[in-house]
Amino acid sequence: MNEFDQELKKRISHIEKILDHYLPKPEGFQKTVLKAMNTTVKAGGKRLRPMLMEETYKMFGGKEKVIEPFMAAIEMIHTYSLIHDDLPALDNDDYRRGQKTCHIVYGEDMAILAGDALLNYAFETASSAFALEDADLPKVAEAIRILARKPGIYGMIGGQAADVELEGTVLSMEQIMFIHHNKTSALIEACMMIGAVLAGASPEDVKAMEECGRKIGLAFQIQDDILDITGQEEVIGKPVGSDEKNQKTTYVSIKGLEQAGKDVERISLEAVEILRTYDTSDGYLTGLAEYLIHRTC
Amino acid sequence: MNEFDQELKKRISHIEKILDHYLPKPEGFQKTVLKAMNTTVKAGGKRLRPMLMEETYKMFGGKEKVIEPFMAAIEMIHTYSLIHDDLPALDNDDYRRGQKTCHIVYGEDMAILAGDALLNYAFETASSAFALEDADLPKVAEAIRILARKPGIYGMIGGQAADVELEGTVLSMEQIMFIHHNKTSALIEACMMIGAVLAGASPEDVKAMEECGRKIGLAFQIQDDILDITGQEEVIGKPVGSDEKNQKTTYVSIKGLEQAGKDVERISLEAVEILRTYDTSDGYLTGLAEYLIHRTC
Repeated sequence: MNEFDQELKKRISHIEKILDHYLPKPEGFQKTVLKAMNTTVKAGGKRLRPMLMEETYKMFGGKEKVIEPFMAAIEMIHTYSLIHDDLPALDNDDYRRGQKTCHIVYGEDMAILAGDALLNYAFETASSAFALEDADLPKVAEAIRILARKPGIYGMIGGQAADVELEGTVLSMEQIMFIHHNKTSALIEACMMIGAVLAGASPEDVKAMEECGRKIGLAFQIQDDILDITGQEEVIGKPVGSDEKNQKTTYVSIKGLEQAGKDVERISLEAVEILRTYDTSDGYLTGLAEYLIHRTC
Repeated sequence: MNEFDQELKKRISHIEKILDHYLPKPEGFQKTVLKAMNTTVKAGGKRLRPMLMEETYKMFGGKEKVIEPFMAAIEMIHTYSLIHDDLPALDNDDYRRGQKTCHIVYGEDMAILAGDALLNYAFETASSAFALEDADLPKVAEAIRILARKPGIYGMIGGQAADVELEGTVLSMEQIMFIHHNKTSALIEACMMIGAVLAGASPEDVKAMEECGRKIGLAFQIQDDILDITGQEEVIGKPVGSDEKNQKTTYVSIKGLEQAGKDVERISLEAVEILRTYDTSDGYLTGLAEYLIHRTC
């Protein structure tokens, strides 16, 4: 295991402790839905969103606990979106990361409620930051506003809804970019912006983090489209060529594999250049951005 | 039309203007989900939750616009809960208030997303209050915390999940009270507490409003169980005796119709007594509480 992978593993375990602390315990008359919330959040994943948030926070000099409820909140939002996406009426997926999805284990009714509950609990968790000793109210308020905007109808849900609405049609590049930007980049933008805001970064720096998050998300998504064609099924965890089989217009089907690969390079270089302006300490965040984009699975 | 009904009508129309102002416009690549959000919120109803919120705010001397985004937010949360409750996996209702439900008109996928989007947009709308001129940050922060707690897993969703979990079992009075308190009272508590908090009421007064909201919700819900047995089908809008047919344990099936009626009287008197301590001006809020509880439909 190389140094970066060791660091990654250490940070995942650190984040999972934070998640465990903030997740509500499965007890009381509503214990099944609480169990569904808990087990789905704990089902794994690389915790990239809270990791990006914390690393951005540290990069701008943040040192307090105020970032932790927001780290937990963004992972709750990410998880709720997966639970609802997997439902029969949407993607109808029985498995995710090799494990049975929430509605398969707990039933469709509990999966709908567990998703609702996680989205709601994300705001309950994040707004608990107002009650922290020495809480900087204007900063927490600004972070809450970003947490409410980016996953919403002009962010993640908007991208998801457009994707559903335009299904089965031939997409324009403008439509593909809209979906990628909202469905994938919006949460990453939120992570980096919230990290910056809570650390007291200037509005210009917060804007730069938004731009950086947008580019990371876009490069990540185009790389995903590329891996759908070139990856190995057992490595990427879904059938290779599934987009092609579904006759789905993707970035790659319009631009071609070669150009798409070049675009990933260009866009990720732009993202890394923004980071290098700030990341003068251990460079872990820059490494993380590169890892995210250049992954082969 | 008596004076109270005229006042009610005027206030409903005032609230609907506020809702219209805060709802996002149906445009862009995600326009269908935006249309689903809009039409479902606008589909009608008595707007009792935002009305209780505004009247409590005014009762404690509130005079600013800060209450409006919270009024819109609570109605968005109420509406999302109806959209998701009506889904095939939950209550499977094709009609509500004589109109086709969201998933019948827009499809199940869009109804799930529209519900998610409304819940999320409630927090986006409410947190816009932080950006109002002269916003009192500690008050808005406290109001956001209540808005996040009461509809959540230890409030409305918790009650709904317990109701689903315990379906088909014989309920104890403790379980019935848990479900009523969370599923019905929690949002009403939120309305009255937020109204009080934003108007600058003391913690003791906020607590009194929570207690009052709990009683109003409870009396409202027992009255609902009574109407299920004694009401007229075309007036209450659902088949009379549906609880009995479903062999559902209710407050009435345990306590009997007569005692349940007496309990509604007692609990609502307690609620009104709390209000009379404060409501020394036009008495509209006290009238509204009485109207809510003593309705015959």
